[in-house]
Amino acid sequence: MEAHEKGFFTEADSVEVVTGRNANTEDPRLKEVMEVITRKLHEAVKEIEPTQEEWFKAIMFLTETGHKCDAWRQEFILLSDILGVSMLVDAINSRRPSGASENTVLGPFHVPDAPEYPMGTNICLDQKGEDMVVRGRILDTEGNPVANAKIDVWQTNDDGFYDVQQKGLQPDFNLRGVFRTGADGSYWFKGVKPRFYPIPDDGPVGQLLGHLGRHPNRPAHLHFIVTAEGFDPLTTHIFDPDDPYINTDAVFGVKESLLADLRQVTDPARSAQVGFDGPYWEIEFDFVLAQV
Amino acid sequence: MEAHEKGFFTEADSVEVVTGRNANTEDPRLKEVMEVITRKLHEAVKEIEPTQEEWFKAIMFLTETGHKCDAWRQEFILLSDILGVSMLVDAINSRRPSGASENTVLGPFHVPDAPEYPMGTNICLDQKGEDMVVRGRILDTEGNPVANAKIDVWQTNDDGFYDVQQKGLQPDFNLRGVFRTGADGSYWFKGVKPRFYPIPDDGPVGQLLGHLGRHPNRPAHLHFIVTAEGFDPLTTHIFDPDDPYINTDAVFGVKESLLADLRQVTDPARSAQVGFDGPYWEIEFDFVLAQV
Repeated sequence: MEAHEKGFFTEADSVEVVTGRNANTEDPRLKEVMEVITRKLHEAVKEIEPTQEEWFKAIMFLTETGHKCDAWRQEFILLSDILGVSMLVDAINSRRPSGASENTVLGPFHVPDAPEYPMGTNICLDQKGEDMVVRGRILDTEGNPVANAKIDVWQTNDDGFYDVQQKGLQPDFNLRGVFRTGADGSYWFKGVKPRFYPIPDDGPVGQLLGHLGRHPNRPAHLHFIVTAEGFDPLTTHIFDPDDPYINTDAVFGVKESLLADLRQVTDPARSAQVGFDGPYWEIEFDFVLAQV
Repeated sequence: MEAHEKGFFTEADSVEVVTGRNANTEDPRLKEVMEVITRKLHEAVKEIEPTQEEWFKAIMFLTETGHKCDAWRQEFILLSDILGVSMLVDAINSRRPSGASENTVLGPFHVPDAPEYPMGTNICLDQKGEDMVVRGRILDTEGNPVANAKIDVWQTNDDGFYDVQQKGLQPDFNLRGVFRTGADGSYWFKGVKPRFYPIPDDGPVGQLLGHLGRHPNRPAHLHFIVTAEGFDPLTTHIFDPDDPYINTDAVFGVKESLLADLRQVTDPARSAQVGFDGPYWEIEFDFVLAQV
């Protein structure tokens, strides 16, 4: 009988020895997950060949990441974000037929009970930033309008913060709103031109970004959750393609199909039509939902 | 230009997009380590295909593991231990010529300043347990005795605890000692028959062991660090092969070459010779050091 068959550790058979020990795991999914995690972890260690000091540095990095987490801060999610893991999990869970709009990460700043408004409402309640109109249609993959779709939108204010990050400093529900499409599937509302902003970078994950020569910024975007009866819920962003960080989103949220054209409108007649005093930005973006 | 070359995320090119972002990392070792970690992590996620709920469970497991760590408890080291990673890192850093004694993990209970004793001293200061004699030689790989080798030994008491786990309950330096070989390379000292004991299992790692159908026990062993000028330091254990957990060490520390024969000695003349009143256990074990 070979050493590893007796449960004794050998470098060559390290994966078999460890995963063999989980033979009595009752939950088949847990067993499968632990088999993959153990195998990939051992593959990584065998390829890296860490010194004892490097191994201990990794232990301390994970410990400090854990200590940074509290009810308001989730440093392990940030770690997952900057390693592209959050986006990968989102992608795996959001595979759609070609032509349907793509998902991206939800992010930590969604609020479930934003107020519902009539189309055309200005969701900006703090009078900061450059005026913007967002308009478009909710369509199915055949190009037909989707009626009674619920559009839940949120964005940062002109200082780069969501209302929930600045409780008391911003009006409640600033730059959030819910809209519902009519028979033609179209939507429109007013907001402000979004700004790039940093993810929280005063913890171990921010330090790691620094060591990697990376910045902590996310390019300017608006968040959407679009839902309609009979369709796969869509959680996504639309991005300003001219943002300086558009190619280097710290959390890898950008997908090519989510770039939205921002056009400046300088025609006073059009400003008057939407209820602005001067020039404004306009985005037109259609969301295509996949049937379930 | 393809999407991933612009820094945009795609499921297929997720590794290139993320590792490409680390192009400006100044430290070449950090860059290499992050490349492997990212690649293996993405491979694992692609193979597991976790749901969002499973991903969040993993995030919360890591968070709770971090929260369990303090100045006295290192839950991430326990996690590394039960996944066989600590043993793997030890193995990678302790490759030795054939014939030399094998390393195993140091463990958290070594104390650097244990008292040095003359050969034959009883390191058991609490009068508990079954008497034992440990004897053998320190040799080089040619079979020559190693003079002036330092043997640092420590073990649990008969209740399965190291002295530092029971400050005030056990005498200071109970079951620890340092011995130094003479010209013949031989050593001997008295202690107690070691007992199996559990790793701390009141945290998330203990819960994981439970879900995996695994026990938290380490089979009975003695710890040794053997050092001598001109030789690779040896950090190892010797194990009782008759321990009920010998094939299922919770931390995978057992290697076949580290099994030591425990023989019971019932001859009153031999007991009198070593200074015991009745029967005792005897281990004979030679350690072979590799030249540096």
